[in-house]
Amino acid sequence: MKLSKLFTKTIKNPPADETAKNAKLLIQAGYIHKEMAGVYAYLPLGLRVVEKIKNIVREEMNAIDGQELIMTNLQPKDLWETTSRWDDEVVDVWFKTKLKDDSEVGLAWSHEEPIMRMAEKYISSYKDLPASVYQFQTKLRNELRAKSGIMRGREFLMKDMYSMHASAEDLDEYYEKVKVAYQKIYQRLGIGDDTYVTFASGGAFTKFSHEFQTICEAGEDVLYVNREQNIAVNEEVLEEAIKEFGIKRDQLEKVKSAEVGNIFNFGADKSETMDISFTDQDGSSKPIHLASYGIGITRVMGVLAEKLADEKGIVWPENVAPYRVVICALGDEPEVTKQADELYDKLVSSKVEVLYDDRDLRPGQKFSDADLLGIPYRLVVSKKNLDSGKIEIKKRTETEPKILDIDDILEVLVA
Amino acid sequence: MKLSKLFTKTIKNPPADETAKNAKLLIQAGYIHKEMAGVYAYLPLGLRVVEKIKNIVREEMNAIDGQELIMTNLQPKDLWETTSRWDDEVVDVWFKTKLKDDSEVGLAWSHEEPIMRMAEKYISSYKDLPASVYQFQTKLRNELRAKSGIMRGREFLMKDMYSMHASAEDLDEYYEKVKVAYQKIYQRLGIGDDTYVTFASGGAFTKFSHEFQTICEAGEDVLYVNREQNIAVNEEVLEEAIKEFGIKRDQLEKVKSAEVGNIFNFGADKSETMDISFTDQDGSSKPIHLASYGIGITRVMGVLAEKLADEKGIVWPENVAPYRVVICALGDEPEVTKQADELYDKLVSSKVEVLYDDRDLRPGQKFSDADLLGIPYRLVVSKKNLDSGKIEIKKRTETEPKILDIDDILEVLVA
Repeated sequence: MKLSKLFTKTIKNPPADETAKNAKLLIQAGYIHKEMAGVYAYLPLGLRVVEKIKNIVREEMNAIDGQELIMTNLQPKDLWETTSRWDDEVVDVWFKTKLKDDSEVGLAWSHEEPIMRMAEKYISSYKDLPASVYQFQTKLRNELRAKSGIMRGREFLMKDMYSMHASAEDLDEYYEKVKVAYQKIYQRLGIGDDTYVTFASGGAFTKFSHEFQTICEAGEDVLYVNREQNIAVNEEVLEEAIKEFGIKRDQLEKVKSAEVGNIFNFGADKSETMDISFTDQDGSSKPIHLASYGIGITRVMGVLAEKLADEKGIVWPENVAPYRVVICALGDEPEVTKQADELYDKLVSSKVEVLYDDRDLRPGQKFSDADLLGIPYRLVVSKKNLDSGKIEIKKRTETEPKILDIDDILEVLVA
Repeated sequence: MKLSKLFTKTIKNPPADETAKNAKLLIQAGYIHKEMAGVYAYLPLGLRVVEKIKNIVREEMNAIDGQELIMTNLQPKDLWETTSRWDDEVVDVWFKTKLKDDSEVGLAWSHEEPIMRMAEKYISSYKDLPASVYQFQTKLRNELRAKSGIMRGREFLMKDMYSMHASAEDLDEYYEKVKVAYQKIYQRLGIGDDTYVTFASGGAFTKFSHEFQTICEAGEDVLYVNREQNIAVNEEVLEEAIKEFGIKRDQLEKVKSAEVGNIFNFGADKSETMDISFTDQDGSSKPIHLASYGIGITRVMGVLAEKLADEKGIVWPENVAPYRVVICALGDEPEVTKQADELYDKLVSSKVEVLYDDRDLRPGQKFSDADLLGIPYRLVVSKKNLDSGKIEIKKRTETEPKILDIDDILEVLVA
């Protein structure tokens, strides 16, 4: 993609109406556009990041036999009344609206009830279990405050998986598999070492749950961690966890963190409340055990933008960067343009994802945009290195460039 | 994918609460699940079809320099008030809801206003034009009636593209390019020969528009066509079209049809109403010319399901089928299972998308499911052909199978 053709541009100053660093950076760099508080459009560069995160999550969900589907935003009232979760006193984030006949419908903030109603249709025997399905769904949640940029939105993209089992034991076994899959995801996203599985409250879901928390200054949560023992506890359940699991408080360090995943074990509750059952091997009728597993895709993008940024801008991990390389062509001498064009074509034909800064701007402006955008590799084509046929390459995370032959550059970039 | 592991199953009888053939077939085959009237979930097989249609549309939009992004469902009232389209008297399909502070927000049924507000940010000079962006977005529309299955839903997936230009001439030129791209899309979807560009009313959008209409018994529209001259006119604007373009009524055939695409030329209207302008080459301030181009992705899926079906079930075009092949293993003799397993592994490793009916069912049931699902190629592994090392292959659109060597089968299937 040539930057001269890109729909968006970087903006000189961060937006004045945002307090969150992730929103400031992402808006300034042209990744997102604020539609209203807590509601953001994902622009061409931003959507590429979203899709990369989705693909990593998708691969790991498929690897544990998850089947992708997509449920609906509009939700019928009667379905959620079966579990009392239609009530605004029980769930305080509903957006509700009305059909033409004045009957109420809800906008989905989660999907346990609809998946269980579907399960009723497809799961009748123990032979149909276990089953695991997931979706990437735009969730709408009527949050009172929305000041954390894309880290807590009123509209956001979530991966939610639901697994159904014939027994508590089978659920437990799968639940542990998902934990491992989640850890792989955070590793691939470049935040594995700072991400902990924690004990947390179940909220509107269940009494107890597990969260995945990433250490992050901008996070809304407080965590007590022991890095060596790989233990982390959410502040809200600290007392309980100390009592129940014998953790020692003085061995825990207090840090700020952001939730990047949340998993819930509903046990047989939903199935029993909704009166859904299957026929087991012995012919008896039994409830289905349910667990749900969420990752806020756009929230994770916000955490990555915020946590890994430096004073110059965003620093994307290689796996999620919208493009792997940016070429900065310095000056408008025909030889420079020719070499930059050739380099661009060569990289494109080698399937390297490349941005080409072909705009008529000063070098300083091109460099600061490359930094702000957070592209992992910057290539500089300039008159200075032209005669030797060499090209300057610099990683976003390093300060010193290297001067390499084009073949060596290709070797670095073609993964 | 092994059918024994698939989340869904075919259902013996079509659902009693659906009148539309597309919904009956797609529900019976396990492609979709009805959440409420006009609101459907897309199950694993259904989502695969959706993604295939999306990819064809995406490739053609990228080929005419469209840049993909994604806008939002939640929409601020003030934005739509600038063009009077917040008013329920002007737009009668709004779903509206409220934030915690009781302020109203809308749920997006289209995106011209938000894209223009974004354009204001990124388009200041003639150098920034033309620009063309598109999204795949879940639209919510409060339709009074929703009885056409996924051909007219209250929640549906749409590709909408928006192009912005410095002049009417530049817009016209691009508009014609999009028409050609759309025709390519319908060709690739297998309905090109029955799809016409028609003159249509602009509805809530503009005075005049173009629709793409596919001849289809279940369609909601009536079309007057001249196949030889490749002319088609919507019934609602027939009189006007006859007057304006000198078309002769007695040379037109009356047919039923379904809209599969709709394109609108807004000219400079939106830009002027919203007071958005750019600086032209001569330094003067000018309005941006806007056109929008929609394809209802899930609607097209409904049209394909409905139009191409036969008495045995769905008949997917090869380009959109969820899987290219289904293997039916007949009987439970170990040799049959062994050969079917090997065939499955071979096809998977050759990157052929394959369903494997490994269920413990009678041959007749497997065949009728293969037909209902509409998979383009059916392979039968049975004791009968085992000794010769040959395999039976039949296309969904043909009645007679062929008996081929496995190498010849691979040649047919590996595209």
